[in-house]
Amino acid sequence: MSDIPPILKGVFAAALTPLTADLAPDHGLMARHSRWLLNNGCDGLAVLGTTGEANSFSVDERIAIIENLVEAGIPAGVLMPGTGCCALSDSVALTRRAVELGVGGVLMLPPFYYKNVSDDGLFASYAEVIERVGDARLRIYLYHFPQMSATPISEALIARLRQSYPDTVVGMKDSSGDLDNMINMARAFPGFAVLSGWDDLLLPLLKAGGAGCITAVANVACSLAAEVYAGWQDGGADDAHQRLVSVRNVISQYPLSAALKEIMAHHTGDEAWRTVRPPLVKLDAAKAAALFDQLTATGYMLPEAA
Amino acid sequence: MSDIPPILKGVFAAALTPLTADLAPDHGLMARHSRWLLNNGCDGLAVLGTTGEANSFSVDERIAIIENLVEAGIPAGVLMPGTGCCALSDSVALTRRAVELGVGGVLMLPPFYYKNVSDDGLFASYAEVIERVGDARLRIYLYHFPQMSATPISEALIARLRQSYPDTVVGMKDSSGDLDNMINMARAFPGFAVLSGWDDLLLPLLKAGGAGCITAVANVACSLAAEVYAGWQDGGADDAHQRLVSVRNVISQYPLSAALKEIMAHHTGDEAWRTVRPPLVKLDAAKAAALFDQLTATGYMLPEAA
Repeated sequence: MSDIPPILKGVFAAALTPLTADLAPDHGLMARHSRWLLNNGCDGLAVLGTTGEANSFSVDERIAIIENLVEAGIPAGVLMPGTGCCALSDSVALTRRAVELGVGGVLMLPPFYYKNVSDDGLFASYAEVIERVGDARLRIYLYHFPQMSATPISEALIARLRQSYPDTVVGMKDSSGDLDNMINMARAFPGFAVLSGWDDLLLPLLKAGGAGCITAVANVACSLAAEVYAGWQDGGADDAHQRLVSVRNVISQYPLSAALKEIMAHHTGDEAWRTVRPPLVKLDAAKAAALFDQLTATGYMLPEAA
Repeated sequence: MSDIPPILKGVFAAALTPLTADLAPDHGLMARHSRWLLNNGCDGLAVLGTTGEANSFSVDERIAIIENLVEAGIPAGVLMPGTGCCALSDSVALTRRAVELGVGGVLMLPPFYYKNVSDDGLFASYAEVIERVGDARLRIYLYHFPQMSATPISEALIARLRQSYPDTVVGMKDSSGDLDNMINMARAFPGFAVLSGWDDLLLPLLKAGGAGCITAVANVACSLAAEVYAGWQDGGADDAHQRLVSVRNVISQYPLSAALKEIMAHHTGDEAWRTVRPPLVKLDAAKAAALFDQLTATGYMLPEAA
């Protein structure tokens, strides 16, 4: 089939989900932010990930977010929405709809409520989703984020999934911060796209055979991450890398979604940006002030607001 | 309003959810199991908890499970379904429908994806659900299970919720296994119903002012737990307590939902009972044999199958 998406690579923002005062997704602002990211260095958008507060939204709300982006003219092929839920039936419904809409891939958390589940159980979870969706266009990027999901994706599990579904399980986002793991997975599985969840590991991972990054900080440092990616191809990324690291080192001291929304509110002048859905909370004024002081000290300027 | 449910107490089973071969909830078998539990010592049924694999089902599937129980003649007032989801909108939809159906209470997990969330964020989560459901019949039992949710319910959070919603936040299930915490919460909040998630702590908690238990093991040891509860009221529960502890000590060595479903399959002769939804897996034959050997050694006999 000609509409099977290519394997994704490059710089992806784990896009924020702006909200209305009533805590509903603000589809208009989300489309505007998405366009701004794509115009300022992002190759694609990993919407509805951890940073996008995906697990705070129902499946219907998540589907509406993807539909609205596509209707607003964002090319579906650059989207890599998160579709891994605790409930098998939720993961199937959300993944199926995302594929129907033509997304470039899906980023799939393992079911994350039960702890210490076996690789047999995780394999069965992914296999059931793949079989039930039953669509050759489905491209899954596994989401390894043990600090949040408490459910690591082991090398043995990837091997089993690659063996059974080589054209479907095509990559992973590694948010563990463990560069050795990322490099090992890239080497163990040729053609398997490993994307770093940490900005500071983008360059070292690219040098070792990785495919790119999917990060929270790219919501505001998209142009810097793109500079690293382009510079790596041209052999001169070290300066951009250092600047990206300095921005990341500031922002990562704060709760990510709240800090990034604070920066977007400041950058766009739109206070609505500050709203997060519980259980997350806004940055308080003192923390926000400290964040901006530190960020200013890095010398980084965000690209012009959309 | 006369239909505000009383504060619940006594022995509750964290009821299993039997499945069809296609991994869908088996509503007929669920109703039969529920009747058997109520006929054999359970005061109520905490359906759709951790043991009932609730987080493996969509909100629609969970609503259908509660509706089918009520339609099958299980009194809604004895039901305490789990309704706490990661997504605010899911928790609201599920809780609202449960209250409409007249349940005796709901057992509410905190949103459990994000880690290290603040009490401010958890308070906001519960408050939004309570305000959006907006129904005086809502009775919430907080679900404290840090080993699984990684999101503990602190004394300070309970105090804030009790102050703002004294007629709604009326109790908690404590699955931490920490008897001191259970006793402290029962003493700190007079009238607040503390229910143990551990069978072996039922009697000590009752003696210290607790309200009862909600346990997985009660799916098969309901009559023993009821004997403890009745014996405590009459001052002679020690023998039943020892027998309950011996059964619990066997079963708790195995993955709970799978082990309990294995026991129900054996007890009823219905192999369908063995099915679990991924990421859980069935017990393998060797583990099942070891479980039955150990269980037989305790001398415990399950009440006659329904």
